[in-house]
Amino acid sequence: MAVRTPDPDPNERDDEGAADPLRGFGGSYAGGSTSRSGDDGFGSPTPGSAANPGWLSEIELAEARRRLPILYVEAVPVRTDGTGAVTEVGILLRATPLGEITRSIVSGRVRYGETVRDALFRHLENDLGPMAFPLLPPQPVPFTVAEYFPIPGVSAYHDDRQHAVSLAFVVPVTGTCEPRQDALEVTWMSPQEAASDSLSAEMEGGRGTLVRLALASVGALR
Amino acid sequence: MAVRTPDPDPNERDDEGAADPLRGFGGSYAGGSTSRSGDDGFGSPTPGSAANPGWLSEIELAEARRRLPILYVEAVPVRTDGTGAVTEVGILLRATPLGEITRSIVSGRVRYGETVRDALFRHLENDLGPMAFPLLPPQPVPFTVAEYFPIPGVSAYHDDRQHAVSLAFVVPVTGTCEPRQDALEVTWMSPQEAASDSLSAEMEGGRGTLVRLALASVGALR
Amino acid sequence: MAVRTPDPDPNERDDEGAADPLRGFGGSYAGGSTSRSGDDGFGSPTPGSAANPGWLSEIELAEARRRLPILYVEAVPVRTDGTGAVTEVGILLRATPLGEITRSIVSGRVRYGETVRDALFRHLENDLGPMAFPLLPPQPVPFTVAEYFPIPGVSAYHDDRQHAVSLAFVVPVTGTCEPRQDALEVTWMSPQEAASDSLSAEMEGGRGTLVRLALASVGALR
Amino acid sequence: MAVRTPDPDPNERDDEGAADPLRGFGGSYAGGSTSRSGDDGFGSPTPGSAANPGWLSEIELAEARRRLPILYVEAVPVRTDGTGAVTEVGILLRATPLGEITRSIVSGRVRYGETVRDALFRHLENDLGPMAFPLLPPQPVPFTVAEYFPIPGVSAYHDDRQHAVSLAFVVPVTGTCEPRQDALEVTWMSPQEAASDSLSAEMEGGRGTLVRLALASVGALR
Repeated sequence: MAVRTPDPDPNERDDEGAADPLRGFGGSYAGGSTSRSGDDGFGSPTPGSAANPGWLSEIELAEARRRLPILYVEAVPVRTDGTGAVTEVGILLRATPLGEITRSIVSGRVRYGETVRDALFRHLENDLGPMAFPLLPPQPVPFTVAEYFPIPGVSAYHDDRQHAVSLAFVVPVTGTCEPRQDALEVTWMSPQEAASDSLSAEMEGGRGTLVRLALASVGALR
Repeated sequence: MAVRTPDPDPNERDDEGAADPLRGFGGSYAGGSTSRSGDDGFGSPTPGSAANPGWLSEIELAEARRRLPILYVEAVPVRTDGTGAVTEVGILLRATPLGEITRSIVSGRVRYGETVRDALFRHLENDLGPMAFPLLPPQPVPFTVAEYFPIPGVSAYHDDRQHAVSLAFVVPVTGTCEPRQDALEVTWMSPQEAASDSLSAEMEGGRGTLVRLALASVGALR
Repeated sequence: MAVRTPDPDPNERDDEGAADPLRGFGGSYAGGSTSRSGDDGFGSPTPGSAANPGWLSEIELAEARRRLPILYVEAVPVRTDGTGAVTEVGILLRATPLGEITRSIVSGRVRYGETVRDALFRHLENDLGPMAFPLLPPQPVPFTVAEYFPIPGVSAYHDDRQHAVSLAFVVPVTGTCEPRQDALEVTWMSPQEAASDSLSAEMEGGRGTLVRLALASVGALR
Repeated sequence: MAVRTPDPDPNERDDEGAADPLRGFGGSYAGGSTSRSGDDGFGSPTPGSAANPGWLSEIELAEARRRLPILYVEAVPVRTDGTGAVTEVGILLRATPLGEITRSIVSGRVRYGETVRDALFRHLENDLGPMAFPLLPPQPVPFTVAEYFPIPGVSAYHDDRQHAVSLAFVVPVTGTCEPRQDALEVTWMSPQEAASDSLSAEMEGGRGTLVRLALASVGALR
């Protein structure tokens, strides 16, 4: 099974029309946000691409992914009771570009000029829909830093495509999840189920371990 | 100025009628919760006290405070924006039993048989009122452990009355605060004000340091 | 099997001759440290006991344990490689007062007037010997707060004898462990073994969960 | 004053001859590590560069810095006492490429294929010398995530040159520091001095805030 982080082109495409986070920075980003990852071939840079260097073409992104660790944010959505104890964990069912079905969590790249917090919010909305009402934690510190390497075995996590370093958070969700994009469904399950070996085996890129560390960080792992 | 943790007798009295958290434990807590700290003199144990060993009389509690570290929970209430970033900090104005006015945060003892989470929730409700709607964090780990000693200088924190060890949390509050008991008022201020030397000087028992560590833990200290 | 935290009387006895941590506090602790937990019956307080209220007799401690949450520290000893990654976990083989053999970790009570850091160091030395050379972390924040209740099921942890709240730390150990007291032996094992169900089943009071959370906190749980 | 993160070209040059961290990955990195950042112009890729896509030329790195958040690690070196409490903080005196003298901490980029832990160790050795004997923490979680933006004001941190996201750690150092490269000297100071406004004003890119958060995380901020 091809193992990939779950925010490839489709995800990026979603951001069409999003405000350029660095527009206005010192006048150097005069171009509009009409150009961004997924739009422009590397061989034929469009004017937009030239004017807005904060966005990468697909090919440029592919190049960068072979040269630099790429920064990600990930979130394990949870339901909590009135005193904040975790009662349920949300696991995403996702279709890969190849049509395979895998299980995953909220995950995506941090863009140039974007804060970690904004990236986390953007990917929560992308993956859980606009009515999920996530409660982002006031702390900017992740429960773990997951390091995905292109070959398995270097760490608990791997990603065929790139070296990704992911800041992972537990995020309580209070609303209704209506996954968009390539996430088909959110399945809510007990912490025990979420920590089980069988679920872990279904999760892509070693994220079963990530879910267990998330549960441990909230004292919900036995 | 007499420096004391802010949950002495009045606070305990508030819990009148509260369910005994360990009632039903192995049949050994047959008594009702009619007896608890503040009710019974040490020399004349009432039947309630005998039946319900989970509660301490005032004198017994005073004795214990000279013999054992007493476990506390504390909370720095905050307001957050849509992405979880802290925008304001809530500081309590409190009248001590001697009529002095000091500044403090939410604070109180953990009772026998009570979880840390339940104690935190109980004291938030006591100090901020029933409409505060605090969002307790899913993580059971405090941002710091504050150690209060009976004489100043052993640590950053002191308490005339006892050796208290306090698990301190940052708690976002979404509702309206109507302090009860001895807390007169909640003042909302910017992180900068909350971290200022002038505010710190007004806070009891070294809690100015605690507020700064709270702000640091959420990245809101400069 | 009787489940108890592992620092009962024997452990306390070890501290004979230890300096009274609050001696010199405002002149009020004039007595020597000749009296401490385990020495004096409740009915016949000795002069030492009267002069040094920071120590509890066995009966007084037993009383307190039925009335107040008792503060503990616990440590999971680990070996690390040159870059700080955990390679091995130290599990104690311990004989209970009843002669049973159980597995546990470093654990003990925080005394009146003692800092958490000093208590942690004292119990590490008690349980691992004077040549263990533990490297206490600069952070005073535990990886979890374990709440032991007298009946099983309230939390993941239980203790027949008391309601104990334990601040749990991972502590790298660089020297040679020669357990003293009731700890018979330290067994070093891989993170995988330490996290296994079979080991977990042998550990007292739910500490298998504590070991897993410790491993999760250092990224060594899969 | 030009504000830059302190690991520009000179730092990269130091790695000459370092083993390629991904050499041997699936046979795809057949080239030697003779080519790495700083060697090759963008217009004339050398065979080494082609064979070893994990390294960036200076121009390529400059390009990437305008397009992607760049992952950094930073470390605040500390001295601790026997129980792990922080007694001193090490601040670097550094000469910028322009000959200016600024104060900073250990800081540097994470390379493609390199673990965060290895990057941290490499930059500690670069900046403090081979006899510093740093004790890397077993926990992979930073005390804060510092986000440096190219213009001041977006966060507490800024960097003229790039959007950098830095995982920041407190690292006890047990040996002798002999700074190499562009770091001229390590100055050891008390936590109070390190947290002072005057020192903070001398530190580059907002790292005065980072030092305060570091001190807060170890309970050494008042």
